[in-house]
Amino acid sequence: MSWGTELWDQFENLDKHTQWGIDFLERYAKFVKERLEIEQNYAKQLRNLVKKYCPKRSKDEEPRFTACLSFYSILNELNDYAGQRELVAEEMGHKVYGELMRYSQDLKAERKHHLQEGRKAQQYLDQCWKQMDNSKKKFERECREAEKSQVTFERLDNDNNATKSEVEKAKSQYYLRTHMADESKNEYAAQLQNFNGEQWKHFNNAIPHIFKNLQAMDERRTVKLGETYRSFAEAERRVIPIVSKCLEGMVSAAKAVDERKDSAIVVESFKSGFEPPGDFPFEDFSQTLNRAGSDGTISNTPRGERDGTPGSRPDPRMNRTKNKLWPFGTKKPKGPPPEDFSHLPPEQRRKRLQQRIDDLQKELQKEVDQR
Amino acid sequence: MSWGTELWDQFENLDKHTQWGIDFLERYAKFVKERLEIEQNYAKQLRNLVKKYCPKRSKDEEPRFTACLSFYSILNELNDYAGQRELVAEEMGHKVYGELMRYSQDLKAERKHHLQEGRKAQQYLDQCWKQMDNSKKKFERECREAEKSQVTFERLDNDNNATKSEVEKAKSQYYLRTHMADESKNEYAAQLQNFNGEQWKHFNNAIPHIFKNLQAMDERRTVKLGETYRSFAEAERRVIPIVSKCLEGMVSAAKAVDERKDSAIVVESFKSGFEPPGDFPFEDFSQTLNRAGSDGTISNTPRGERDGTPGSRPDPRMNRTKNKLWPFGTKKPKGPPPEDFSHLPPEQRRKRLQQRIDDLQKELQKEVDQR
Repeated sequence: MSWGTELWDQFENLDKHTQWGIDFLERYAKFVKERLEIEQNYAKQLRNLVKKYCPKRSKDEEPRFTACLSFYSILNELNDYAGQRELVAEEMGHKVYGELMRYSQDLKAERKHHLQEGRKAQQYLDQCWKQMDNSKKKFERECREAEKSQVTFERLDNDNNATKSEVEKAKSQYYLRTHMADESKNEYAAQLQNFNGEQWKHFNNAIPHIFKNLQAMDERRTVKLGETYRSFAEAERRVIPIVSKCLEGMVSAAKAVDERKDSAIVVESFKSGFEPPGDFPFEDFSQTLNRAGSDGTISNTPRGERDGTPGSRPDPRMNRTKNKLWPFGTKKPKGPPPEDFSHLPPEQRRKRLQQRIDDLQKELQKEVDQR
Repeated sequence: MSWGTELWDQFENLDKHTQWGIDFLERYAKFVKERLEIEQNYAKQLRNLVKKYCPKRSKDEEPRFTACLSFYSILNELNDYAGQRELVAEEMGHKVYGELMRYSQDLKAERKHHLQEGRKAQQYLDQCWKQMDNSKKKFERECREAEKSQVTFERLDNDNNATKSEVEKAKSQYYLRTHMADESKNEYAAQLQNFNGEQWKHFNNAIPHIFKNLQAMDERRTVKLGETYRSFAEAERRVIPIVSKCLEGMVSAAKAVDERKDSAIVVESFKSGFEPPGDFPFEDFSQTLNRAGSDGTISNTPRGERDGTPGSRPDPRMNRTKNKLWPFGTKKPKGPPPEDFSHLPPEQRRKRLQQRIDDLQKELQKEVDQR
């Protein structure tokens, strides 16, 4: 199936077809360009998304919760994923679009060249034909003239009234014209032979050669298209393993989320180390009273003078101090004393603190007094 | 590591932490929403791209070139690919975003409930404390009064100028006050015991229970996050095999591009079936001449009358006809006669056609004359 032989008379159609071929190729290139722009846009949006959700403060501020750390791992993987999409766009740009545009330029130049060759060959043949046609017309004209001179001669030859010289003149004219007709016949024959030769060469050599070039050019165009179709798909196929890895990374990050760890971090961050408050002590304001009708133990108020009676009354200050701090409570504070009233509402917190201060001051005063 | 025991005094912090937990979850949900919108946008752009480049005319119009058919296959695969991306967005929407938003609502309600329980417990304990504190103050007051009455009584008792009735009155006042102090002491002791009991229950039962619920809630939140991180990644992983198939389809389409076939289609579409023109015949206008000084064969012009001389002159019409059509040419036309002058420029084309018409008409006329 060769264009050179089968399509010898389809120059205009081949002109159109090869133009269509270029248009199709360029349309495909445009498609690729738009495809890669979509990919670039996609990658850009993903990059921006990652940037938006990445921690802005230093790692120290944000708690080290596994849920947070995993989220940031996922963002990292998404960032890599976006990078892969950018690679896809890049490869489509260079290996496919760029390649096609370069090729298109070459193709246009080559087509132009072949078509010009075709036209030149045609023009040459037309020229030969014109020459042949001119010589044919001349031959025809000379034949007519020869005919006419023959008729004249024959007429005069058979005319008894014609002079000999008239007959001779007519005869030589007839011979001349016949000779000229012969000459132009030879010329025409030569031109015809030449034309036929050139025509044969045109249709058997020139046209097949040029059309074969066109065919080869068009076939190469088709092959190129097939190659770029492949590159287009391969650009994406190539990143699939890495994209898979990104997604695997996300799944790993998801699995690393540990609710127990995160609970423990909350404890570590906030625990005060204090123990809950122990029992409130019984504050026995009746110590200073002389117990009328009860056990008879009478003790003076701390503020008043002692009456000096020794013996039967235990030092009220000793008893009271002890009893005041831990009369009922059994729970001794571990480490720092139970001074954290932060669980109480503010009002009571202040009262408790003030109470504690008073108690301790009294104790201190006693120590001082005893010295 | 239990919040109930280690963080008993960190209610405010747990309030804040659980709020942070919800905020973090909602922020992640927002991230997922934006991610899926990017995916939807990507898919939409791809769909539009396919629509733009799909053949608008019926399949019959567009030539069946393998390069075109493969391109349309590729568009089809790209369309399927876009469909896969839409699925990813859909799954992210339902399984991740939708799930998170629903969960977030539940989480908020649960947190509110637990914090309310915490505040209620605290308010109850404060109430107990207030009651205890009030009874304590009353006890203190009563003791002061009892003290005062004791002092009064002792003063009067030792006062020689005091009347017996004054002394008796002071004595009974003293007894009364002491009794009242005892009563308020008992009341206070009871209140204190009650408060201490409630306090113990508060810090050993109520708080641990509520904080344990908060911890469980927070742990479930963390688990949920881990699950949605996973769903997020799985949504995409799931489509990878199908995406691979789409790309494989594209590669297959690329391989199906066949330049030989496409060349053959061009031939099939355009070939005329005609053969290139054969040699132009020699048109011998000298046939009508009496060849003066050559072979002596004389024939009449076709237009003039025949002179009737039989024998030596072959029928010029026979010779001329034969010689006019194929004197030099050897190539007989196959099928339709070589009447296609389409390769010639228009001017010559018309001349040739006209010439041909003239020749044929003359031939026809001869046939008619001979009958």
